[in-house]
Amino acid sequence: MKALVFENELKFHNDYPIPEIKEGEVLIKTSMVGICNTDYEITKGYMGYNGVLGHEFVGVVVDGDKELIGKRVVGEINLACNTCSYCAQGLQRHCPNRQTLGIFNKDGCFSEYFTLPKENILLVPDNISDEEIVFIEPIAAALEILEQVKIEPRYKVALLGDGKLGLSIALVLNAYNIDFVHIGKHEEKLALSSKMGSKTKLLAEISNEYKMSFDIVIEATGSKGGFETSLSLVKPRGTLVLKSTIAANEGLNLASVVVNEITIVGSRCGLFAPAMRLFENNKIDVKPLISHILPFDNALDAFELNKKKEVIKVLLKF
Amino acid sequence: MKALVFENELKFHNDYPIPEIKEGEVLIKTSMVGICNTDYEITKGYMGYNGVLGHEFVGVVVDGDKELIGKRVVGEINLACNTCSYCAQGLQRHCPNRQTLGIFNKDGCFSEYFTLPKENILLVPDNISDEEIVFIEPIAAALEILEQVKIEPRYKVALLGDGKLGLSIALVLNAYNIDFVHIGKHEEKLALSSKMGSKTKLLAEISNEYKMSFDIVIEATGSKGGFETSLSLVKPRGTLVLKSTIAANEGLNLASVVVNEITIVGSRCGLFAPAMRLFENNKIDVKPLISHILPFDNALDAFELNKKKEVIKVLLKF
Repeated sequence: MKALVFENELKFHNDYPIPEIKEGEVLIKTSMVGICNTDYEITKGYMGYNGVLGHEFVGVVVDGDKELIGKRVVGEINLACNTCSYCAQGLQRHCPNRQTLGIFNKDGCFSEYFTLPKENILLVPDNISDEEIVFIEPIAAALEILEQVKIEPRYKVALLGDGKLGLSIALVLNAYNIDFVHIGKHEEKLALSSKMGSKTKLLAEISNEYKMSFDIVIEATGSKGGFETSLSLVKPRGTLVLKSTIAANEGLNLASVVVNEITIVGSRCGLFAPAMRLFENNKIDVKPLISHILPFDNALDAFELNKKKEVIKVLLKF
Repeated sequence: MKALVFENELKFHNDYPIPEIKEGEVLIKTSMVGICNTDYEITKGYMGYNGVLGHEFVGVVVDGDKELIGKRVVGEINLACNTCSYCAQGLQRHCPNRQTLGIFNKDGCFSEYFTLPKENILLVPDNISDEEIVFIEPIAAALEILEQVKIEPRYKVALLGDGKLGLSIALVLNAYNIDFVHIGKHEEKLALSSKMGSKTKLLAEISNEYKMSFDIVIEATGSKGGFETSLSLVKPRGTLVLKSTIAANEGLNLASVVVNEITIVGSRCGLFAPAMRLFENNKIDVKPLISHILPFDNALDAFELNKKKEVIKVLLKF
């Protein structure tokens, strides 16, 4: 089968073996996938991963479970043991024995077929298109912020970063009627956010009045400079939500975290079920985030496109 | 008057001017002071501070308020504006207009006389000795942890670091009946902690079972290595309390904070009133932490003593 594989370098295969189904798994024929910055980071060495890339998908079950065959599905990306204390709490995404689709010890979805455990699968309602539901994983990751942090209406909230991650978070914050300022570097991207309902501000235009003034700042820039700006915006005793491993990977100075008693909340994957409800009930419109839809055969070109500043989301169609 | 002053280098003065009382201030004649690692950090450039050092004291009011003259007192170290939103919340220690005794824009207490605003002053009950109450500031700073973080009995808690800071925190955790493991590098210091009621463990002896197993880890080592060890002990969705600006000042890698969704809580100064209750009701015994009591004339020697690994607290008597 066709597959986009990272094996110390990015390669497009035409004859990658179709995976065999293990006990409890289904085989999925991929319909559409999305490129995430994590995929790009893996090609730079993140997680030391080698294998088929990709964790954002929508597909159709073709084997492994009679009742699921023919159904259009998405799926949670963490494969958990379901026996540990984390799994018992519904925190499969923190299972210490987990594999993660296309990220850790498990071939991903950038291929014609791939497998997932049955319990990871969610059916896609008919009123949601492939182009929309392929965003369920980043939208779930954005929702994770609201699972972790209580945002009161009286709070001043800032979101920093207007890339894929920042715009997904903006969609969710607006869906939950949260008042916030979206700060970014790109006028066109902030204009998209503004249409979602966000207040927006160009980074170059933020004034001293913004310094140490926000109860909650969400860091979604993926850069050390973005982290430092975010930290400068949080008020004493406020909270900085850290969404990007890429930013966190660099050496960061936390002295002001101690002096101003700031709380940093690391935030990663979220549950798919609440994200699915947002799509099903038409509470978010992800379509403006789609920059390109290319055939899967052009996956390598798509990866190059993904690097361009003006590009938001690149989807691949099978 | 005699004074220990940092002016790009540490100097002992014999003829430093006695400070004048401003509106609302009292003049305090110093009885005893304690050396904190922050004092030492200032001599290495922390906060860019120049002036009389010192923020841990007990003394007697000699001028500025009739009712206070002759009283034995301690005092909160942050001088706040009392008009901003932080002051209105009882968070004078986060007042953006604050000065801090011996740390920021305000001469400290390592001198025969110094001033503080009346509202910062607390009377010392007769049943508490000078040697004990001079610890009120570090004990209040340790108590701050419990103001910020809720520690449930079911939690696994670790405290890392067995210096002054770590041992003060151990005293407070034991006073509050909290079950925790005190991890450190020094057998004699851990033995002190053990006498307070702590479970203890040498850093060299911690096993893999400790990794990612604690709900709450309190970082009190003041080193980058200590921070990294602390982070490795916190379990997914757990909390790391960061107590030391010194550790935070170095470039830290927070990737695992995002992946494991860890919360970092920066923690600094605390309120004196609850600390005073601990002393007054005999709930803590700080005396085992005293390594040396020297005459103030030997302040420079005391600073050298403070650097030694085996030394815990050095006090100076006037």
